[in-house]
Amino acid sequence: MSDWYAQGAPLDAIPVDDRAAQYGDGLFETVAIRHGEPRFWSSHCERLTIGCDRMGLPALDSDLLLSQLRSAIEQSEVDSRFATAKIVVAAAVGQRGYQRTTEDRSSIRIGLFDSKQLAAEAYQAGIAARVCQTRLAIQPALAGIKSLNRLEQVLARAEWDDPSVFEGLMLDTDDRLICGTMSNVFLCSGNSIVTPAITRCGIAGVMRRQVLAELEKAGRTVDVRDVEIAELMNADEVFISNSQFGIVPVDRVNAARFAQRDVSREVMGLLSSIGVEECSI
Amino acid sequence: MSDWYAQGAPLDAIPVDDRAAQYGDGLFETVAIRHGEPRFWSSHCERLTIGCDRMGLPALDSDLLLSQLRSAIEQSEVDSRFATAKIVVAAAVGQRGYQRTTEDRSSIRIGLFDSKQLAAEAYQAGIAARVCQTRLAIQPALAGIKSLNRLEQVLARAEWDDPSVFEGLMLDTDDRLICGTMSNVFLCSGNSIVTPAITRCGIAGVMRRQVLAELEKAGRTVDVRDVEIAELMNADEVFISNSQFGIVPVDRVNAARFAQRDVSREVMGLLSSIGVEECSI
Repeated sequence: MSDWYAQGAPLDAIPVDDRAAQYGDGLFETVAIRHGEPRFWSSHCERLTIGCDRMGLPALDSDLLLSQLRSAIEQSEVDSRFATAKIVVAAAVGQRGYQRTTEDRSSIRIGLFDSKQLAAEAYQAGIAARVCQTRLAIQPALAGIKSLNRLEQVLARAEWDDPSVFEGLMLDTDDRLICGTMSNVFLCSGNSIVTPAITRCGIAGVMRRQVLAELEKAGRTVDVRDVEIAELMNADEVFISNSQFGIVPVDRVNAARFAQRDVSREVMGLLSSIGVEECSI
Repeated sequence: MSDWYAQGAPLDAIPVDDRAAQYGDGLFETVAIRHGEPRFWSSHCERLTIGCDRMGLPALDSDLLLSQLRSAIEQSEVDSRFATAKIVVAAAVGQRGYQRTTEDRSSIRIGLFDSKQLAAEAYQAGIAARVCQTRLAIQPALAGIKSLNRLEQVLARAEWDDPSVFEGLMLDTDDRLICGTMSNVFLCSGNSIVTPAITRCGIAGVMRRQVLAELEKAGRTVDVRDVEIAELMNADEVFISNSQFGIVPVDRVNAARFAQRDVSREVMGLLSSIGVEECSI
């Protein structure tokens, strides 16, 4: 089940000329709600703030947004002990055409969704992934932020319906590995840990940021740089991160298998210590 | 004024979880309605059909779509002698997440808008354009079609608010000239007529197609190929095309002026002869 709210009241519908529905003119965040509270709220807010700035949308009032989220959690019948909140920020509706109105407030809507934990087996044995054919276009203006223009992810996700494949990895149009359709990716070879730079395209995930911060605190270095797919295929260990599940090891990508779990276990321990309970397995 | 219809009935609102509003997962067409009839309907239908195929959306029933459009025109208070219809095809709503539902019908909505003819002066003296900073990302999977992922156009249009500037021209991330935010562009130097190839990004406009077809019928050759911005700046003559206004000459782009109008006048004559009355000036 799910329900949506706007300005503290239930919301079933949006105007047909909403700019999110016309042009994808907006941003979103998918926030893990645990024990009734948004997890890593400040990171989500910060990405939204950067997104609004980059897209020329009015700055958000993060206190107001948090109070609207809390009000939605309170009103919702979704079990907020373990749920997902989706926050959509859409540019204000104006006239027809690409030009925005001078209205200085975006439209904010908050959806709450039942969620369930990934099976323990995913954290232990790892998940299966595939390499998608759909490429990410290089667009530095939108790289890192989570805009509502997400057709590339939709097309990539439509490439498979085998439920045993959990995630699709995406390359950019220059053949660099960037991220999964809904996750960021890390690879480990020997002592090195690497994750693709998110400067040309892709989304800079909130959990990716936690992983980077916690590894740094633990004295480990992560190389954030361009990665070729061959480097991933030859890695000892691969894992993916996402705000909802923390991280999970990747057992295979297409026909390649990854037997090592050492770094994944270490990162799961680190995340678990900062409240990502799903990783306490 | 404007009003919207779906399945023959007035439509004010759409579901908050509509996939157009969540991911821009859909397509649209902007059709000129003249004397109550859609202009170049088969070209619009063809582009929609190609778009659905490319995006993996169910094929449309074009007869049904036309009857829905006629019904909307009939019910609407918009003056259908000279109006604009916007047709939005949104992927069917399913669960949260990028994966589409297996539902085999898209959601179709039709908006009707009052429209007014461009001033005769635009056709005679030409319009002013500028070169935008916002680039078009290279994404062949979506090139040519008119998806609802239009943030690049929105960001480009937000670069100026000087009402004397009618259009912004856009380059791709490799510095090639592609199209305007809402138009296609043609340039003429000596005897040659050139328009950028729409194979890596950009929208292949319905009016662009008519211009190409009519020039071919008239025995003129148009080179459809990659174009550098310097080539445009050094051209003798420039004009832009759009389904609503036909074509208009471009008098200037930034500081560059284009004095010649010969080809524009010729093309206006050709379009006028196939029913683009706005060009009969």
